[in-house]
Amino acid sequence: MSIEHMEQMETLLPEWLETSRLRTGQGEVASYIPELAKAARDTLGVFVADSQGKTIAAGDYGIPFTMQSISKVFTLILALMDHGEEAVFYNVGKEPTGDDFNSMIKLELVEPGIPFNPLINAGAITVSSLIAGDSPEDKSQRILQFFRKLAGNDGLDYNMDVYHSELETGDLNRSLAYFLKQNGVLKDPVEDVLSVYFKHCSIEVNCADLSRMALVLAFDGVDPCNGEKLIPRRYVQIAKTFMVTCGMYNASGEFAIDVGIPAKSGVSGGILALVPGQYGIGVVGPSLNSKGNSTAGVHLLERLSKEFSWSLF
Amino acid sequence: MSIEHMEQMETLLPEWLETSRLRTGQGEVASYIPELAKAARDTLGVFVADSQGKTIAAGDYGIPFTMQSISKVFTLILALMDHGEEAVFYNVGKEPTGDDFNSMIKLELVEPGIPFNPLINAGAITVSSLIAGDSPEDKSQRILQFFRKLAGNDGLDYNMDVYHSELETGDLNRSLAYFLKQNGVLKDPVEDVLSVYFKHCSIEVNCADLSRMALVLAFDGVDPCNGEKLIPRRYVQIAKTFMVTCGMYNASGEFAIDVGIPAKSGVSGGILALVPGQYGIGVVGPSLNSKGNSTAGVHLLERLSKEFSWSLF
Amino acid sequence: MSIEHMEQMETLLPEWLETSRLRTGQGEVASYIPELAKAARDTLGVFVADSQGKTIAAGDYGIPFTMQSISKVFTLILALMDHGEEAVFYNVGKEPTGDDFNSMIKLELVEPGIPFNPLINAGAITVSSLIAGDSPEDKSQRILQFFRKLAGNDGLDYNMDVYHSELETGDLNRSLAYFLKQNGVLKDPVEDVLSVYFKHCSIEVNCADLSRMALVLAFDGVDPCNGEKLIPRRYVQIAKTFMVTCGMYNASGEFAIDVGIPAKSGVSGGILALVPGQYGIGVVGPSLNSKGNSTAGVHLLERLSKEFSWSLF
Amino acid sequence: MSIEHMEQMETLLPEWLETSRLRTGQGEVASYIPELAKAARDTLGVFVADSQGKTIAAGDYGIPFTMQSISKVFTLILALMDHGEEAVFYNVGKEPTGDDFNSMIKLELVEPGIPFNPLINAGAITVSSLIAGDSPEDKSQRILQFFRKLAGNDGLDYNMDVYHSELETGDLNRSLAYFLKQNGVLKDPVEDVLSVYFKHCSIEVNCADLSRMALVLAFDGVDPCNGEKLIPRRYVQIAKTFMVTCGMYNASGEFAIDVGIPAKSGVSGGILALVPGQYGIGVVGPSLNSKGNSTAGVHLLERLSKEFSWSLF
Repeated sequence: MSIEHMEQMETLLPEWLETSRLRTGQGEVASYIPELAKAARDTLGVFVADSQGKTIAAGDYGIPFTMQSISKVFTLILALMDHGEEAVFYNVGKEPTGDDFNSMIKLELVEPGIPFNPLINAGAITVSSLIAGDSPEDKSQRILQFFRKLAGNDGLDYNMDVYHSELETGDLNRSLAYFLKQNGVLKDPVEDVLSVYFKHCSIEVNCADLSRMALVLAFDGVDPCNGEKLIPRRYVQIAKTFMVTCGMYNASGEFAIDVGIPAKSGVSGGILALVPGQYGIGVVGPSLNSKGNSTAGVHLLERLSKEFSWSLF
Repeated sequence: MSIEHMEQMETLLPEWLETSRLRTGQGEVASYIPELAKAARDTLGVFVADSQGKTIAAGDYGIPFTMQSISKVFTLILALMDHGEEAVFYNVGKEPTGDDFNSMIKLELVEPGIPFNPLINAGAITVSSLIAGDSPEDKSQRILQFFRKLAGNDGLDYNMDVYHSELETGDLNRSLAYFLKQNGVLKDPVEDVLSVYFKHCSIEVNCADLSRMALVLAFDGVDPCNGEKLIPRRYVQIAKTFMVTCGMYNASGEFAIDVGIPAKSGVSGGILALVPGQYGIGVVGPSLNSKGNSTAGVHLLERLSKEFSWSLF
Repeated sequence: MSIEHMEQMETLLPEWLETSRLRTGQGEVASYIPELAKAARDTLGVFVADSQGKTIAAGDYGIPFTMQSISKVFTLILALMDHGEEAVFYNVGKEPTGDDFNSMIKLELVEPGIPFNPLINAGAITVSSLIAGDSPEDKSQRILQFFRKLAGNDGLDYNMDVYHSELETGDLNRSLAYFLKQNGVLKDPVEDVLSVYFKHCSIEVNCADLSRMALVLAFDGVDPCNGEKLIPRRYVQIAKTFMVTCGMYNASGEFAIDVGIPAKSGVSGGILALVPGQYGIGVVGPSLNSKGNSTAGVHLLERLSKEFSWSLF
Repeated sequence: MSIEHMEQMETLLPEWLETSRLRTGQGEVASYIPELAKAARDTLGVFVADSQGKTIAAGDYGIPFTMQSISKVFTLILALMDHGEEAVFYNVGKEPTGDDFNSMIKLELVEPGIPFNPLINAGAITVSSLIAGDSPEDKSQRILQFFRKLAGNDGLDYNMDVYHSELETGDLNRSLAYFLKQNGVLKDPVEDVLSVYFKHCSIEVNCADLSRMALVLAFDGVDPCNGEKLIPRRYVQIAKTFMVTCGMYNASGEFAIDVGIPAKSGVSGGILALVPGQYGIGVVGPSLNSKGNSTAGVHLLERLSKEFSWSLF
């Protein structure tokens, strides 16, 4: 059935993408990191890969963009591989927040003052501090190598302009980080942790890279192209669960109902999504809706999910 | 494989249940509704049904208890069947809150002042007001008939002592309801809505009833015992998604990671859970953890999910 | 000096009032109680009384309006006279909130769940429940008699249209009251308490009545016109302190800095203010600023305070 | 009458102080800045000065302590003298918050995201950034000179141990400052602003110094000992008003009702208080109540206020 779907997708995806592209006018490109504001608002691209090495692409699938929050999924996995579940979840919770991804309210109000989950900023900053390594540079290097392996792309690298733009304008993340430091959640110096965090957010990819990383999750941690076991199954399970409950900011509940597949978005307009046992998907569409998700990207994924009954539920 | 699992379960469930029963000492029976406080703290029962009519039970599976919040799943479904998605989700959102199930904070702070989802109290009260019917009695009658059909049990009925206990002590729900009235979310008189709400919370079931209701969800709305189509597939999908993202109060994220199946708990200690395409499950264990879920019941479901790899993720 | 000021005021007040009246265009008449929405937006009146029986009036000082939140000052005093400080402040705090007057957030978040002060709605509802009396009617009767005595006006009475309008639309106050009931702060039935509360908010006065009531506070509880001791000095002190810290909703801090005299406003546009040992003042101007205070009334009081150096500070 | 009071005070103050000292057992010495934790819990001292140069002291009035939050009153005054009312209150509000002095909630929730008042930490950090000066050192120097003049003590200086202790452990203030930076409230680099802020908090005084600084406020900005005009009257008025509405953290409302004089406390246990036109008062008692105020110091001031009818209200 998957092959049949691939054929149908190949034929119809370009048309569906153009329909979804009309939605780009309803959102706005993120402006809070100056470098991100340079993206073209009407961009939309998608790339789908299956386990047989078959791929389908449409629209602006080749343009580069930074991973931003999408990277949080994989730093979580790396932290789990470095320290195990117990250590990671001593410092970060497992619950959706219902608040904005950069909110400080629950850190102040809800004991014990740890981030509610690893996909909000406070949680992802905490996870960054848990990556093994002797120095921030070492941690960043380990992250990059891990991401390169998952994407099957040794050329993956930082966009240093975006990194510096984030460093310079990231005062809200700094505020979050010092709050976490005060609460005893962060052990390392704040600027060290933030350099790791901002760097992995600045890793530049295209839709093909995302689809390949997603494919590894879709096949429980094994790269289906070469059979290499890259991630323990349990950590993939944890990651996929968080993608469903918290992956699309505070529109995650709606996305679960309307699309129903594990996905993670970033403010660059990227979305990594997957159909377990079938596909890895990369989407880019920098025009964001009010919740911070690619407005056209979500529209396209909903169409795909409904046409091919992808929902897990 | 399912048959094999059923055999294993039949053999091992009594032992696993007794292991989980040891956890009852770590929780407390709900005391805020006086009638509920009468439950025995060390009670634990489970009932599993599959589509072939095979059932397995262990522990105190036969004791009666009221559905409480478990009923919210099915009133949501009935409201969807009465009015469709658009009308229901105009009045209630789709997002987890991260707050207590009876919190008022987001109603005050987050525009447009509608409940975040149908499984917190504010949302379920709103859903109660959307049930079709000429009068509160009529609405309640429709709910009861629907629940009887789902449970395949014409004897299902209200526990009027619990109902009156809730009516008398339900001032926090009254407060929520008047807030919703103020925000224009409720159209009917508050006491009318609350009588419908408290009544469906007071429907008395046992584990077998829950397992049968769950089985209908596990088979996409069709009663596998007689092939009758009771709920449109899409509404089952919506219900199962909410069960995963919001079903276990603000421990839903943790439950999704540790157990990973659609479930809904109630403060009476009941849990309705399901394995899609396989099982309907009813659990009761009135000793609750700090999040309001059956402490032993969650423990038992986690054991089962891990032993049989039930997680959707 | 006071006499000299009175003469200056007599000459200049009409002109100052017309200058302030220009500010009415910057605000809006309260609309949430339908009866209040009927007030004319450009209304502005003021009435000043001193201890010698001398009075000065300007503008629309004769129009009737309901006391609304202004009444809270005097029900607090009556509750203190009925039960003493300890009993009253067991149920209601002494702190400004920084939140809207009808906010529920601190009731939910801050232990022990009592209202922060007696001048926000939750606090005033609590105070209403503390008025001595065998029945709601009896309590309301005692309040009315007390207000009549303070105003030296036996004709003071309820505006029953406003009362019924509040009863019908007061769902947010109902929500607050049930929350207080749940927290154990209210002992009596909610509707009984609310009838007392809505009734004292609906007592109809004019600027002359307010100035006379204020004069009693300006002279430490003694009616300077007849020497009658109406309120113990300590309770006047408490009332004046609350008027300074919480009297002008969450613009109280600003008013204390810019005007600096004890005052209490209501959503009908009334303001009761006083200069200790000198004047009682009544103002009406239904056009409200975003904080719920009479926009022109505050402007006029600021002018008067600055011209005559009235600030306590 | 003042002279008579001075005589009474001289006789009775030592006894009253010892009575209040018994309260030190009910509080705790602040521990969050390690240097502060070294203070002796049962310390209590008081120093009263009048305009004739008469002084009365009792208890441990001579021990040195750092000003901490007490300094906020005078940096506010200096910022007002440097830039005027409009510029200062463009960046900081005038309202009590009802929240803890280091809370971030209202910064996140309430537009326009400026601190509610200059006496909470966020507000005082903002005020520090408004002090005129070419560099942080220059600003700090101007503050120190101003404080020395107000205290009539050229020997006033920083306690550099406390300063470094605060610098090292001040992550919550750093978090606040970066949040303010993000909101555009702070223009200078955060660490520059914090060095100014932590430094003025670390100025070391004793009760006599505080009483002399308070005396200047009690006489509307004029040093009564030498007739020198140190502060414009309007800025003293603003300072005194804030001391009444926000001076004692979120126990300011209670203090206004029970004591009723302008006062400002610090976590070192110091309290600066004044009786307008009469006295300047310095108190120290490091054992703090749950709101962060000197438990015995507040008790002693309440006694004094009641005995001599000091309340402004």
